[in-house]
Amino acid sequence: MPKIDLDSIEQLNRTGYPPPFDRDVAGRFVRRLSPATGLTDFGVSHVILKPGAWSSQRHWHDGEDEFLIMLSGEALLAEDDGTTVLRAGDCAAWPKGSTNGHHVRNESEEDCSFIVMGGGTNTGGGYSDIDMLFTADNRYVHKDGTPY
Amino acid sequence: MPKIDLDSIEQLNRTGYPPPFDRDVAGRFVRRLSPATGLTDFGVSHVILKPGAWSSQRHWHDGEDEFLIMLSGEALLAEDDGTTVLRAGDCAAWPKGSTNGHHVRNESEEDCSFIVMGGGTNTGGGYSDIDMLFTADNRYVHKDGTPY
Repeated sequence: MPKIDLDSIEQLNRTGYPPPFDRDVAGRFVRRLSPATGLTDFGVSHVILKPGAWSSQRHWHDGEDEFLIMLSGEALLAEDDGTTVLRAGDCAAWPKGSTNGHHVRNESEEDCSFIVMGGGTNTGGGYSDIDMLFTADNRYVHKDGTPY
Repeated sequence: MPKIDLDSIEQLNRTGYPPPFDRDVAGRFVRRLSPATGLTDFGVSHVILKPGAWSSQRHWHDGEDEFLIMLSGEALLAEDDGTTVLRAGDCAAWPKGSTNGHHVRNESEEDCSFIVMGGGTNTGGGYSDIDMLFTADNRYVHKDGTPY
């Protein structure tokens, strides 16, 4: 196929996060590019963050590698050891299994956008700053295992 | 880890293509980001094409999905049914198994750059415009199976 017509792909603005953790991603708009283009070997999403929005709660994956490429605007990448500004063309990689949680957040006055991809198998993972884990069957639980 | 320091990653300018097919990729400079960052679930490369250079011979993969994100400059995406110009932020996806061969080439006067990723398992593939196949064990052969 020729280049992807992003405008033709639905933007999703939902989250499964329980309150109040859903509020931080309220300004996140996601286009899932893999199902739209027939890819099955990895997941690719196009993400727009409105000013103030986060990509996710700061998290890690036990079984899935992640890779991000900044497309436009400016985002702040936060990890255990601090923050890094990402601008168009900047890339970041998060190997599965590292418990150094990451997310990006838009602290600028303009929209920012990026591509993020994930591979491997969901075997669960954790959140660095809140009392939450995600499970291999895509549920959110407290760190003691009780459900939200 | 914070953003990837691209300058710290070696640029590779080699190809296994037999002559004369190697000439078209002589101006291709590749940084392999997955081994440099500890990713194993998919391959990610940063590629610079000098003016006149091709990303590859026009090809397809039988067992590997591919995805490309244009970072800078201008490239021409060529497929069976024609060409499309790609500029920064444009994306293209090639599901494994489609025999609609693809490549990008730099017909501009300036360098262009992109990120390309691949997943799945190499089970071989083909080339659209030349008498060549690649095999599951990474050899180049004629379409009748004889080696180069």
